[in-house]
Amino acid sequence: MQGLLGEKAFSLEFDLKSGLCGQRSSSKRMLSDIAGIFRNPQAAVERAEKDNPLVYEFYELPLPNHPGDLCFGTSMVYPGQVDGEYFMTKGHFHSILDTGEVYHCLSGQGMMIMENGAGDWNCLEFKPGTAVYVPKGYAHRSINIGEKPLVTFFCFRADAGHDYQSITQKGFRNLVVKGPNGPEIIANPHWS
Amino acid sequence: MQGLLGEKAFSLEFDLKSGLCGQRSSSKRMLSDIAGIFRNPQAAVERAEKDNPLVYEFYELPLPNHPGDLCFGTSMVYPGQVDGEYFMTKGHFHSILDTGEVYHCLSGQGMMIMENGAGDWNCLEFKPGTAVYVPKGYAHRSINIGEKPLVTFFCFRADAGHDYQSITQKGFRNLVVKGPNGPEIIANPHWS
Repeated sequence: MQGLLGEKAFSLEFDLKSGLCGQRSSSKRMLSDIAGIFRNPQAAVERAEKDNPLVYEFYELPLPNHPGDLCFGTSMVYPGQVDGEYFMTKGHFHSILDTGEVYHCLSGQGMMIMENGAGDWNCLEFKPGTAVYVPKGYAHRSINIGEKPLVTFFCFRADAGHDYQSITQKGFRNLVVKGPNGPEIIANPHWS
Repeated sequence: MQGLLGEKAFSLEFDLKSGLCGQRSSSKRMLSDIAGIFRNPQAAVERAEKDNPLVYEFYELPLPNHPGDLCFGTSMVYPGQVDGEYFMTKGHFHSILDTGEVYHCLSGQGMMIMENGAGDWNCLEFKPGTAVYVPKGYAHRSINIGEKPLVTFFCFRADAGHDYQSITQKGFRNLVVKGPNGPEIIANPHWS
């Protein structure tokens, strides 16, 4: 299967446990690629120099850049922490800000942290079967708070696009870290 | 949870095996509601007079009628046949024809039959993990060819709307029936 998808019907197989699709290559984010998103980037760099784990991977399908098409695929965030902060995705706004996204959790345990430009934020939990709706205008990041891969099936408008830069520059207002009694949501000390 | 969803983040739990969501009411289609979609409607009516089985159910969430929002939920088509024709959904076009839809199979075995106004058609198989992309402009119908419920998670643009009438009047060009060696795709004798 080559080139643009979606002009004709097609199907892909996403393993319900691992989330992986043998028919496509995933986009992979190793710890060295994203060390700067952690509150302790130095600890991330040091860990990356040791074994540079795969933090997450996901599928980017070449659907038409058209408001009537939908991009979809799976996202796998692997278990782990950097100085007590859970492995997570970079997080992004959509370039067309006024578009939402759905994530359906297939396996694992996690959180979706969301915030908009007006300062509203929210954090919802993922367990197998949970569908989280990310409203229009919200940056969003998936966080693995469990011991197994966090696997979600996602869907968004195919022309929505990704704006990683805005949230990378400012950071999210809140972080999810491992506390003595489990995950804790704390203010991001570096938030600007 | 009342009223319009989607202005704020929210989550719902869809059981990965049954597809059911304890937090919402489903829309249910009993055999008596849809007897006319089968090639032998008389057999459907007679069966409905006996035990009137639930053929399928699905969730209709009140997301905003906005092109940046997404409707999503699960669809459960139950196993069964009417005179050798498998239980299936009515099938629909979108009212905004130029919008696609994604179905991700969580459990069961089935087929998605699709056709557009220009006469192109396709039939793709569902097994657990299969994601089927229904392109813009295609009527589509889910068919349960197995012995267990066919459970899919679906997503489409929230303003797309449903046009059930066009395809109900003409019927689908092709039907899926139980043959001696399994499911067979045959021409619809009543297609107009």
